[in-house]
Amino acid sequence: MKNTFGNSVSLTIFGESHGEFIGAVIDGLAPGITVDENFISSQLALRRPYGKTGTKRIEADAFKTVSGVFQGKTTGTPVCILIPNENTRSSDYSLSAYIPRPGHADFTANKKYHGFEDYRGGGHFSGRITAALTAAGAIAISALRNKGILIGTHIARCAKINDRKFKNLEEDIALVNSLRFAALDEDKGKKMQDAIKQAAKEGDSVGGILETAVTGLPAGLGEPWFDSVESLLSHALFSIPAVKGIQFSNAFSKIDLPGSKYNDPFILNSGRVETATNNNAGINGGITNGMPIIFECAVKPTPSIFREQKSVDLMQMKETELKIEGRHDPAVIHRARVVVDSVTALVICDLLAQRFGTDYLGE
Amino acid sequence: MKNTFGNSVSLTIFGESHGEFIGAVIDGLAPGITVDENFISSQLALRRPYGKTGTKRIEADAFKTVSGVFQGKTTGTPVCILIPNENTRSSDYSLSAYIPRPGHADFTANKKYHGFEDYRGGGHFSGRITAALTAAGAIAISALRNKGILIGTHIARCAKINDRKFKNLEEDIALVNSLRFAALDEDKGKKMQDAIKQAAKEGDSVGGILETAVTGLPAGLGEPWFDSVESLLSHALFSIPAVKGIQFSNAFSKIDLPGSKYNDPFILNSGRVETATNNNAGINGGITNGMPIIFECAVKPTPSIFREQKSVDLMQMKETELKIEGRHDPAVIHRARVVVDSVTALVICDLLAQRFGTDYLGE
Amino acid sequence: MKNTFGNSVSLTIFGESHGEFIGAVIDGLAPGITVDENFISSQLALRRPYGKTGTKRIEADAFKTVSGVFQGKTTGTPVCILIPNENTRSSDYSLSAYIPRPGHADFTANKKYHGFEDYRGGGHFSGRITAALTAAGAIAISALRNKGILIGTHIARCAKINDRKFKNLEEDIALVNSLRFAALDEDKGKKMQDAIKQAAKEGDSVGGILETAVTGLPAGLGEPWFDSVESLLSHALFSIPAVKGIQFSNAFSKIDLPGSKYNDPFILNSGRVETATNNNAGINGGITNGMPIIFECAVKPTPSIFREQKSVDLMQMKETELKIEGRHDPAVIHRARVVVDSVTALVICDLLAQRFGTDYLGE
Amino acid sequence: MKNTFGNSVSLTIFGESHGEFIGAVIDGLAPGITVDENFISSQLALRRPYGKTGTKRIEADAFKTVSGVFQGKTTGTPVCILIPNENTRSSDYSLSAYIPRPGHADFTANKKYHGFEDYRGGGHFSGRITAALTAAGAIAISALRNKGILIGTHIARCAKINDRKFKNLEEDIALVNSLRFAALDEDKGKKMQDAIKQAAKEGDSVGGILETAVTGLPAGLGEPWFDSVESLLSHALFSIPAVKGIQFSNAFSKIDLPGSKYNDPFILNSGRVETATNNNAGINGGITNGMPIIFECAVKPTPSIFREQKSVDLMQMKETELKIEGRHDPAVIHRARVVVDSVTALVICDLLAQRFGTDYLGE
Repeated sequence: MKNTFGNSVSLTIFGESHGEFIGAVIDGLAPGITVDENFISSQLALRRPYGKTGTKRIEADAFKTVSGVFQGKTTGTPVCILIPNENTRSSDYSLSAYIPRPGHADFTANKKYHGFEDYRGGGHFSGRITAALTAAGAIAISALRNKGILIGTHIARCAKINDRKFKNLEEDIALVNSLRFAALDEDKGKKMQDAIKQAAKEGDSVGGILETAVTGLPAGLGEPWFDSVESLLSHALFSIPAVKGIQFSNAFSKIDLPGSKYNDPFILNSGRVETATNNNAGINGGITNGMPIIFECAVKPTPSIFREQKSVDLMQMKETELKIEGRHDPAVIHRARVVVDSVTALVICDLLAQRFGTDYLGE
Repeated sequence: MKNTFGNSVSLTIFGESHGEFIGAVIDGLAPGITVDENFISSQLALRRPYGKTGTKRIEADAFKTVSGVFQGKTTGTPVCILIPNENTRSSDYSLSAYIPRPGHADFTANKKYHGFEDYRGGGHFSGRITAALTAAGAIAISALRNKGILIGTHIARCAKINDRKFKNLEEDIALVNSLRFAALDEDKGKKMQDAIKQAAKEGDSVGGILETAVTGLPAGLGEPWFDSVESLLSHALFSIPAVKGIQFSNAFSKIDLPGSKYNDPFILNSGRVETATNNNAGINGGITNGMPIIFECAVKPTPSIFREQKSVDLMQMKETELKIEGRHDPAVIHRARVVVDSVTALVICDLLAQRFGTDYLGE
Repeated sequence: MKNTFGNSVSLTIFGESHGEFIGAVIDGLAPGITVDENFISSQLALRRPYGKTGTKRIEADAFKTVSGVFQGKTTGTPVCILIPNENTRSSDYSLSAYIPRPGHADFTANKKYHGFEDYRGGGHFSGRITAALTAAGAIAISALRNKGILIGTHIARCAKINDRKFKNLEEDIALVNSLRFAALDEDKGKKMQDAIKQAAKEGDSVGGILETAVTGLPAGLGEPWFDSVESLLSHALFSIPAVKGIQFSNAFSKIDLPGSKYNDPFILNSGRVETATNNNAGINGGITNGMPIIFECAVKPTPSIFREQKSVDLMQMKETELKIEGRHDPAVIHRARVVVDSVTALVICDLLAQRFGTDYLGE
Repeated sequence: MKNTFGNSVSLTIFGESHGEFIGAVIDGLAPGITVDENFISSQLALRRPYGKTGTKRIEADAFKTVSGVFQGKTTGTPVCILIPNENTRSSDYSLSAYIPRPGHADFTANKKYHGFEDYRGGGHFSGRITAALTAAGAIAISALRNKGILIGTHIARCAKINDRKFKNLEEDIALVNSLRFAALDEDKGKKMQDAIKQAAKEGDSVGGILETAVTGLPAGLGEPWFDSVESLLSHALFSIPAVKGIQFSNAFSKIDLPGSKYNDPFILNSGRVETATNNNAGINGGITNGMPIIFECAVKPTPSIFREQKSVDLMQMKETELKIEGRHDPAVIHRARVVVDSVTALVICDLLAQRFGTDYLGE
């Protein structure tokens, strides 16, 4: 199931950077979910690249929902969303057919598809496809919000600059979802943006860490082993290009704690069982415990840089140098944040439908 | 597919800590793979708990292969391996039915299964089930070795003590696979073991980081999006209890590098395309590039500690204190390492069968 | 997913005719379903071969449930049932390794598994494996009965003898489920049994048609296209060896009706929407409409006959003659009926869990 | 996986009768398969309705391939085909929202989707969606033809008129694939068409039986149990609206044969193992034996008739009468034939990719 993911709610994606459309088919959504086209547009806008200073006019991707929505609501049958590609100047990419760009999928595509791949702009590997994930995810995010389940992601670290930690989760989720550049600390956010601009000047790029919180989940979602919540989320999140690491509640640091500090004691809060700490990130034994899910994604620096790089000419089988032309982002982390929210929302919709049946998220 | 994972090669697991058998069904293995029962035994031995000083007699789990193997080789039909449970003293666990142990799945199991769960010793959530993963994985590891694909895991960090880094991968894989306690640096390994013993004395527990290398893979395995190699590996690895984070090639640190340093330049090495560095961990665009796959798993401290902990009595719905009795490990990281190898091997068998067909791994 | 079937409720089977155990793992059953071991036994007894005159002592298969059941009820985690093989005289089958029996899977197994298959008694292809389906199905049948969903199958035709049609479905389902040889008309049943004995005398075998009814289903189960109720049922039913045809409500005859007769008019019956006829077999557009599901399975004559048959010696690659030795049934249709009920029940449990969530079938 | 089917090669469909587009996403096709747009067009033309006398201008559906094809060949990534809907006069269908048409899915859609379904023209249940199956299938049919695997379907029975049987399979497959109305016997074909016209005059409809042959398959495809070739084919074929029965090699008649006649003896033909007869339809134990696969589909009379029919007004919950307006076919069997070929081809591509790997069908 290469380009399809999910059980009760599933997503299929298709398209290439330079084709006519990219798109997504979401199946298994409950009938009766309101589809808010403005919200889809605004989520797509968050994903789109924008100018060095952030002041250029932001234009959302055009998209159309060609099935599965009737009179503004989901019908319960597959929702197909199409997003047209624009400005598909293919001349920029002719070299990548045989001189693979370091850090990109040109070489592995060639090994897998034997030269039949659409090499223009990364083809099916292009980050462009995440627009389809984002549009699909927007419907999922809306549906969850109606059930009191909220998702928010901030840029926890970028170019060695740390954002402040999450404090009040619900307020902070509202805050990041109102921001174009999702740093909780405005000042740190500016410094990050300066660092991104500086990297651009140097023909280089930067990466970072995204931290995501999900609140309002019921206890009892997920499965003990292969369909643990961590398994399903990581499966979907590692699909996002540039994500190379996932940890729940800062696990790579917290493993230094002794068990007596790491274990989350159970307490009663207004008659509800909660945990005093949340080192397990809302998940015990693969199953939600009702506390917020917290995770971090390591986002590598975007591989498109404007410096001379070493590569191999696959036709002549000799080493060569390569310099990438065209327009490229010196960072994707600020745009990836909405993609992370989107795939997270789709996984949670799937978990809810699996647990409570296909009608659960409808109205 | 709650307890089943994989496409062309799939694994189904079952069992509880205190049932008669736990077991695994591996389906889709090529016909003609030699099943080496001694190797299965020795892998199971690596997973078993052993005494504080490591000198107690190590006894492998009994197991039997009840289907799918004929005249010492796989038939191509499902292989079922059964492992009997011993010493199932259920009296130790009666409390966990309604006073959930912090860090364990008692509470979430109760929320999901409404009290019908087998609460004895963690039931189906027990780390015991990883013995089934290990036995199944042993067959996969053997099959891969016959194709020149090697897997090894060392304890990169435990109780704040770091092992040395991987140097010569093939030698280091051979080294760790010869060790009971898988530290590359013998001295660091002793210090880790001392720290584990010290934690035990204090009724506490420790966690750490496992680092895994896979060598000998062909380029072109995996898929661009949802079945990226990172997605499939992380899905399987997060099934292992205690794993709370996964990164490829130390991504959480390396995201601080600029793109010009993170990108892996392509070079020619004896006529073969390789990369000069391996920050992408052998995977570009979700697909293997022929370089080693390297990843790290964050393993939380084992939740079974012998100190008084806060919990909630779910029957009376009031806060209470809990002290766990019985025998429990102060660390699982040294045992988890063989489980990591096992699920890694199963995922790679699946990728190979998907790519090259169902006969590929046979003889 | 070769030996695994189902989405929310799934079944994995394993084993060979002459291995130590065959078995089944049922995953996704709601927690809290009562597991009635006597009922499993009696269902297994219906599947077992019995003597020519039906008077020999009928001995149920021994079986054990080694996981997923605690204090007599399902826990919600995988249920593994093991059935030991007895009387595994392997000498009878040595020839089938290279002289394939007509109508059997010996030849295709050899082509698929290259000689590594366990050829003894049909190996993994043996009808013996249907005992595992039957044991798993017994739990599903019980769970459905508790929800008022009843399943019954009669031998509609055997050796050219027709049973009477279903009349009052609920009475007839109760009737067939009380019978060892499931003919609604006792006299026709005797004639069928005589014909089976006669075939045995002649070293030959007979086939027939099984007709199944399912009552008490809610409307709204299933999906429009690939997961239509017809698709899912037929997928599972064609897994049963010897089934070579499936029709819903005698479709192969009824296609001669004009649309004006075939269409089922909607009517009101005590305030409930029903159809006046049921030519669509309770399924419109792939989805249940609340009327009974009715289908027929064509069961081929058992291929094990005691006459000389033509075959090919695959070692010497020359034509030869073959005479099968040992004990074999001259018909399997009367035993297959409980297997049909079993896989039907499992599919319906899956449809209900998919629709109403994982708790639906629990208590 | 409601609207997705297949393992190594999978198909996802979407769309409604009156939406902007319907479409299909085919994933897992080997890279390098030539995509012949003329052949897709001609296959779509075979599926389109045409006038009573067959003389009206036949206009193929417009379609566009928006991903997965580059320079005329498959890339190996998902192929999305879009087909625009035309003449979507929605006023004709407003009644079916609450007065369900007998034999249609209006009632079950309402039960499943609670009134959120797009009721216009059958919505997602419309036979219109089979155009997407047909376009996708055309690529699969071409790919198989390049490997010497041929598929053909004739109208074995329609309105009680029988076509002649298949004789020389390869010639007959070529013949039917050259015909617009696929009767092998020209005279019988005319009689069938007359009967269809007569039914139309009477405001009625007719059904029939389609018989399909697949030649050129290697032995060894498919799996013993749940992924038997019969299981996979029937799963896909029962997705086609109006298909209510499937038998392999006329099983519902042939079950009257004794085993000694039904069994297919193995013989040598020019050094190749074949069977003297083909009652098992090329499949033993779920796996292809290298002989042609032969199966028949029972196609119910189209439910859209122009006579007054009984139904229930679901708003007022009282019985009423309904007369369907608009343009509708008095038969779909002659159009369904190309849909049967299409889903058959997709299943066989999946089986080949599963067996021989993802490159097998490429060039």
